[in-house]
Amino acid sequence: MLVYGKNVAREVLNKNSIVKKVYLKENFNNEEILSLIKENNNKVVYKTNEELDKIVNETTQGIVIDIEDYHYKYFEDLKEDDNANFVVILDHIEDPRNFGAIIRTCECAGVDYIIIPNKRSVEITASVFKSSSGAVVHQKICKVANLHNTIEKLKKNGFWVIGTDADGENYTNINYAGKIALVIGSEGKGLQPLLKKSCDQIASIPLKGKINSLNASVAAGIMIYEIAKTR
Amino acid sequence: MLVYGKNVAREVLNKNSIVKKVYLKENFNNEEILSLIKENNNKVVYKTNEELDKIVNETTQGIVIDIEDYHYKYFEDLKEDDNANFVVILDHIEDPRNFGAIIRTCECAGVDYIIIPNKRSVEITASVFKSSSGAVVHQKICKVANLHNTIEKLKKNGFWVIGTDADGENYTNINYAGKIALVIGSEGKGLQPLLKKSCDQIASIPLKGKINSLNASVAAGIMIYEIAKTR
Repeated sequence: MLVYGKNVAREVLNKNSIVKKVYLKENFNNEEILSLIKENNNKVVYKTNEELDKIVNETTQGIVIDIEDYHYKYFEDLKEDDNANFVVILDHIEDPRNFGAIIRTCECAGVDYIIIPNKRSVEITASVFKSSSGAVVHQKICKVANLHNTIEKLKKNGFWVIGTDADGENYTNINYAGKIALVIGSEGKGLQPLLKKSCDQIASIPLKGKINSLNASVAAGIMIYEIAKTR
Repeated sequence: MLVYGKNVAREVLNKNSIVKKVYLKENFNNEEILSLIKENNNKVVYKTNEELDKIVNETTQGIVIDIEDYHYKYFEDLKEDDNANFVVILDHIEDPRNFGAIIRTCECAGVDYIIIPNKRSVEITASVFKSSSGAVVHQKICKVANLHNTIEKLKKNGFWVIGTDADGENYTNINYAGKIALVIGSEGKGLQPLLKKSCDQIASIPLKGKINSLNASVAAGIMIYEIAKTR
């Protein structure tokens, strides 16, 4: 897959095993990135800025990199990982920018695994790479067939599953010690009723104004960092 | 100005004094919005979906509304507002989606005023309305000529000014009681050195991964809600 942008390039080039080819603007002058390319001995193809933008239909900041497709993890990887104690489940997030921002937050906060459903959800695209600022490279992400079954399995494996919705307990009054799985609803519809039922607890972020919800990636960020405090 | 989308429409129609004209898809069928239009007795023009999308160059969800331009507040309004004790200063945020998401968070968390500079910053556009989910309608926003002078004035008016940057105190160890002004840096450059110097304190959100910053609207959300806890 083709990814682009300086921040993404820096992260990708630091994980050289996934890099296939680098497309570069002739007079590209970011020292850090150029020395990474030299160090890695990457295959480089020079293009004009316009040619680069055409490759991905976006403004590339002078660099496009062809990389291996993202290797999703399996639920079994998580299950066998004794250090995993902080999981974020995304219930059908649809916007690539929200997905990217959430991956970035997870990577920054020390989330061990992100779980997404394999249907009706965003995939890992160049746009997700871009809005994650390259964090995708460092974050373990599992794709599962059924979120409900996954939640039940997590519970059996000692996770306390916390959903986020409007009518739960104030998120500041919840005990986040131990193994936590946080479930974030989709942008338009929030948490699916079936998933909500299977959560151990529902957390709410208080809304004091007239708008009835926060942006999905902002709400996720507030919850993830509240939990991260206890890690 | 022309704004669009169902969430934006709902908020705008609830503040009928700013509505000039409503452009509607012929078979538009959102009950809540239709009854607001009827109640307000708004002037309606019917269009096809394609015509609507053309008006704003975006997918409109079947509704475009022509409204009065946003009326910015003045710093004097804030100064004379005895109830104002929570202010957010945006140091040259450039992305309309980040700006919109931050306005939405401020409205939800009970922030009294947002302050933006009148140069090199995003303006309030249709795209900002959309990503704020209409929160712009309810949020007081001041435009000022000089952020540095504004911070000095806020300090003289009893505000404790907290900047956000990488090398400050852990944000969870800060006392947020009293009148607080939070300064958020721009996406690429963070906080300007001069502004950073004039802050009373610098707060940092701990980053445990390899990526060196959070998305600007996510970082703002985490800080704003940490302060909101003490309100």
